[in-house]
This record gives sequence, C-alpha cells and structure tokens, in this order.
Amino acid sequence: MTSDLLEKLDFKKGGGLIPVVVQDSKTKEILMQAYANRQAVEMTLKTGKATYWSRSRKEIWVKGATSGNTQKVVSVTADCDFDSLLYVVEQKGNVCHTGAATCFYNKLK
Amino acid sequence: MTSDLLEKLDFKKGGGLIPVVVQDSKTKEILMQAYANRQAVEMTLKTGKATYWSRSRKEIWVKGATSGNTQKVVSVTADCDFDSLLYVVEQKGNVCHTGAATCFYNKLK
Repeated sequence: MTSDLLEKLDFKKGGGLIPVVVQDSKTKEILMQAYANRQAVEMTLKTGKATYWSRSRKEIWVKGATSGNTQKVVSVTADCDFDSLLYVVEQKGNVCHTGAATCFYNKLK
Repeated sequence: MTSDLLEKLDFKKGGGLIPVVVQDSKTKEILMQAYANRQAVEMTLKTGKATYWSRSRKEIWVKGATSGNTQKVVSVTADCDFDSLLYVVEQKGNVCHTGAATCFYNKLK
C-alpha cells in the first residue's frame, strides 16, 4: 500500500518537488516547511530520518546531518490530491538554523 | 511592524507564490496546505478570512466562499527566511473538498 501511495505523489506540479510540512509529534507545533523530491521521500520512508531537497544547495539534505539536530520520522502523510506532504517527527535539539524551537516566529497578525 | 514584515515576504522564490501551512487553532491538526500571492496575504490580514491563490483556477480564492466552510484567521506567521507562511485558523465545517476533517489522510508511513 505504501508503495502504491508513493506512485501517486504528484511531483510534476512543483517541478519535481513537493512541499513538506513538518510537525512535532509531541507538541504538535509546526517546526518548519521544506521540499522533497522523490528520492528524499524514499530515503525518509526507508531510513526513518527526515530527508529533504535543499533548493539553495541543490542537493539531498538529511536534516541534522551537520548540526546534529535530526528528526526521527513518526509518520509521512500525503494530502487529498497528493501534492503536499506532512512529516510528523521527533525533533532532536532545535529545528531552526537560528537556534529557535520553530522556524515560524515572524508574526504578521 | 506588520507591514514591514509583509515587505520581507519572499514571493520571488516561488514564482510569485508562497506556500501556506494551515493549522487548526483548537486541535493543532494540519488542515491543508495551499499557496498565497501578495494580494491573498494582504486580503487575509485585512479581512481575517483565510485567502489563497488557486493554482488550478488561477484566481484569488477566499476559502469557503462557495462551500461555506470558511476559515477565521487567528494568526499569520512567516518562517525564518520569509518564504513560508503559517495560518492558524478556526475552521467552520470540514476543510477538505472530500468532506474530510483534514486534507492529510493518505498515510505512507
């Protein structure tokens, strides 16, 4: 079933990338939003380590590979039209490169 | 301050659009993920009704305008590099066009 759903993911709409929402499994806070290509999703499912595609570095990015602030993946869920993903994770350390506990801290309203 | 942060939003990176993560204010569930252009963000801030850009219809989309399943916006927050937004909302009715209470229901893992 898992592999069937993987085939359904719509990478074309976003030029090979799908946006990934990342939520903390305990607090349910939104930690960050990133992107994954097919390889990154496959690696995430296989290794249980949250893996993305870095648009700036143009490479596969295993979260925490350099910082140590890894994410253990609890679940991977696609939305109704298979063009968005949700990773629920156990975050080790702080998620943000600024040191913040969530990347979402600039309140407009 | 709000308008200063609005100016910082990076619409260029996504060809005029910024991904928006939508979270329920009460349950903290992720309801959906959509996109906003600058006009949609401005309308959201001004009206308090969650507003997006529909990529399929290529038009401004006030959530619930036809279905009645509107979203009252509690907060709008940008992430660390201003290329992703989080709308925390009070959802009226079910969010998904399928009738589901969240658009994220296709579990891969």
